Amino acid sequence: MGNIIFKASVSWMGKGVYCEGGTRNFTVGIDETLELGGENKAMNPVEMLLCSLGGCMCISAASFAKKCNVELKGFSVDLEGDLNPDGFLGKDPNVRVGYQQIRYLLKIDSPSPQENIDKLIQLIEERCPVSDSLCGVEVIAKDAVLV
Amino acid sequence: MGNIIFKASVSWMGKGVYCEGGTRNFTVGIDETLELGGENKAMNPVEMLLCSLGGCMCISAASFAKKCNVELKGFSVDLEGDLNPDGFLGKDPNVRVGYQQIRYLLKIDSPSPQENIDKLIQLIEERCPVSDSLCGVEVIAKDAVLV
Repeated sequence: MGNIIFKASVSWMGKGVYCEGGTRNFTVGIDETLELGGENKAMNPVEMLLCSLGGCMCISAASFAKKCNVELKGFSVDLEGDLNPDGFLGKDPNVRVGYQQIRYLLKIDSPSPQENIDKLIQLIEERCPVSDSLCGVEVIAKDAVLV
Repeated sequence: MGNIIFKASVSWMGKGVYCEGGTRNFTVGIDETLELGGENKAMNPVEMLLCSLGGCMCISAASFAKKCNVELKGFSVDLEGDLNPDGFLGKDPNVRVGYQQIRYLLKIDSPSPQENIDKLIQLIEERCPVSDSLCGVEVIAKDAVLV
C-alpha cells in the first residue's frame, strides 16, 4: 500500500485553553480540567492519547478476530497512565513531562478457544500503530510561522 | 502536585470496527476509513493521535503565553505523519507498524517581539506532555480478561 500521510489541524479558540482539532470532516474539542487551568469543556490531550491507543486496540481486535477464528461478542479496553503535571508546569525539572507508564486491560467477550483468543491478543499487541508509535517516534518542527 | 492517573475506556460497538472512547463525562467516536476497513464514521486512531499532540501544543501555547510576554491573537498547529498500513495489515514485516515521523507547523498570530515568541515556542516544545510521551513510554498489559 505504501506510505499514507495522515493529517490534522488543531486551533486554539481564543479563550482559556480550549481548542478544536480536525481531520478530514471530523472535529473534536480539547480542553483542560479546572485544576489544570481549563474550563473542562472536553477531554484533555493526554486523555485523548489514551482514547487513541484504546481505539487502535479495539479496531485491531475487530479487524483480526476472523483471521484468528475468534467470535467476538464484545471487546473493550480500560487504560490508565501516570503523569505528573509538575513537569508541564515547570515546577520540578526532575519529573518527566509526559506519561511515565501506560497500562491497559483488555476485556474480551468471546466463546472461542483460549488458544485463538491468545493469538488475537498477540496480534493486537504486535500490530497496533498507536502503541508502536508510543515506543518512540521522531516529532519534528517543519517551521513556526507568524500569520 | 504529584502523579495523576489519567484514565479512559474504549469499547468496540459490535459492528464493523467502529468504537467509542470515553473519559470522565466525555466521549469520542473512532473509526477507520473505507480503504482501511471501516465505515468512516469518525476520525481514525492515528489521526486522533495527531489531534492529541496538536491540542497539547495549543494548550501549552495558551498556558505559557503570558509568562513569555506574548500577546496571543491566534494559534494553530498543522500536523502530518507518515504511516504505512502494510505494517498493520501484516503485508510487510519490514515496515514500521506505527508512525515513521510526525511533522508539525506552528502558526502564530501575535504582535509581540520575535524574541518573546521564540521563548514561547521553546516552552511549548519542552513542556508538551504528548510530544514527550511520543519519545517513548512504557505501555504494558495489566491483564486480558474474558468477560
